[in-house]
Amino acid sequence: LIVLNVSGTKFQTWPDTLERYPDTLLGSTERDFFFLEESNEFFFDRDPDIFRHILNFYRTGKLHFPRQECISAYDEELAFFGIIPEIIGDCCYEEYKDRHREDQE
Amino acid sequence: LIVLNVSGTKFQTWPDTLERYPDTLLGSTERDFFFLEESNEFFFDRDPDIFRHILNFYRTGKLHFPRQECISAYDEELAFFGIIPEIIGDCCYEEYKDRHREDQE
Amino acid sequence: LIVLNVSGTKFQTWPDTLERYPDTLLGSTERDFFFLEESNEFFFDRDPDIFRHILNFYRTGKLHFPRQECISAYDEELAFFGIIPEIIGDCCYEEYKDRHREDQE
Amino acid sequence: LIVLNVSGTKFQTWPDTLERYPDTLLGSTERDFFFLEESNEFFFDRDPDIFRHILNFYRTGKLHFPRQECISAYDEELAFFGIIPEIIGDCCYEEYKDRHREDQE
Ligand SMILES: [Zn+2]
Ligand SMILES: [Zn+2]
Ligand SMILES: [Zn+2]
Ligand SMILES: [Zn+2]
Repeated sequence: LIVLNVSGTKFQTWPDTLERYPDTLLGSTERDFFFLEESNEFFFDRDPDIFRHILNFYRTGKLHFPRQECISAYDEELAFFGIIPEIIGDCCYEEYKDRHREDQE
Repeated sequence: LIVLNVSGTKFQTWPDTLERYPDTLLGSTERDFFFLEESNEFFFDRDPDIFRHILNFYRTGKLHFPRQECISAYDEELAFFGIIPEIIGDCCYEEYKDRHREDQE
Repeated sequence: LIVLNVSGTKFQTWPDTLERYPDTLLGSTERDFFFLEESNEFFFDRDPDIFRHILNFYRTGKLHFPRQECISAYDEELAFFGIIPEIIGDCCYEEYKDRHREDQE
Repeated sequence: LIVLNVSGTKFQTWPDTLERYPDTLLGSTERDFFFLEESNEFFFDRDPDIFRHILNFYRTGKLHFPRQECISAYDEELAFFGIIPEIIGDCCYEEYKDRHREDQE
């Protein structure tokens, strides 16, 4: 199991799960830049709650949009981890699109 | 106390609580498939926040629907753990039904 | 610092904070019934997220109502810990009342 | 890495991140008042979920408003940590303003 420490919240997953998307930060060797030897974990100074959706993406191949979150904060987290918002699931796409529209008005 | 590690978030409960529903993944020996000897816990590569509602179900016999979650992500977690959405409490049934209807439009 | 383990999520607070409300479960000796000697903590097989609002109550004297939660699940947690919903803050009272009304329709 | 224990939930960040805002509680020596030597961490008897937004502020320079939270509880946390709500991001400002207006009606 790999430990991903996101601002103090520890996430664990199988290396296989992350390697499904080799073009992203966590799926590539780019992640080694964030490795802390003393604690044997990867540390990210990022939002711990939104990260749940990022990890779920590796597991299911689908991104879900958390309705209660600020969409701009959400987009920033995706960008940091190298994930393209185009992958948002059909289930959450309308909601995501609507919120972007609202924000631009 | 049994430890259920869901993507890094640790949940604890009494074995008795889980065994109330022997037809589900956690209430049956099927869960042993997820046991990690080195850490003496069950590990699930699943959504850690939705899991709270699953564990609450074992304790109260009622499923609550978290309004801020994607309903399709919620249904997937129930399916994985072998829990039938029919058990959703009266308190949350309308909300759950409405969201399903919205999604199908 | 006292450790309150709520289904695996650890909360910590000063004993003083809890003793402000001696008529509630956590503020009285009733809590000793939930003490686990081997881990030197109090264990509650209850909802870990709603518990945050219960602990905040001891600190601030005000109960806030989390809009995304099922109101019936929320009320059950208050009842378990011996806290009366009358203490809900002015800030959250309208929301709480409205949701109760909706549920009874 | 600095450990910030907020009612039992552990947050971690780089000292540099906090020192970006020296006029706030966490960015100044005022924080030493909350240091616990026995566990080598800072302990705050405050809301653990809202704290995520406070820590994000140090990282990004922007405050986001969590729609599902009570605005009065949110404002109290900002005040405790010495953060001025004027810093709320453009993305969340409308929502924040609207909720304040609603509350005053
Ligand atoms: Zn979705
Ligand atoms: Zn419910
Ligand atoms: Zn409130
Ligand atoms: Zn925002």
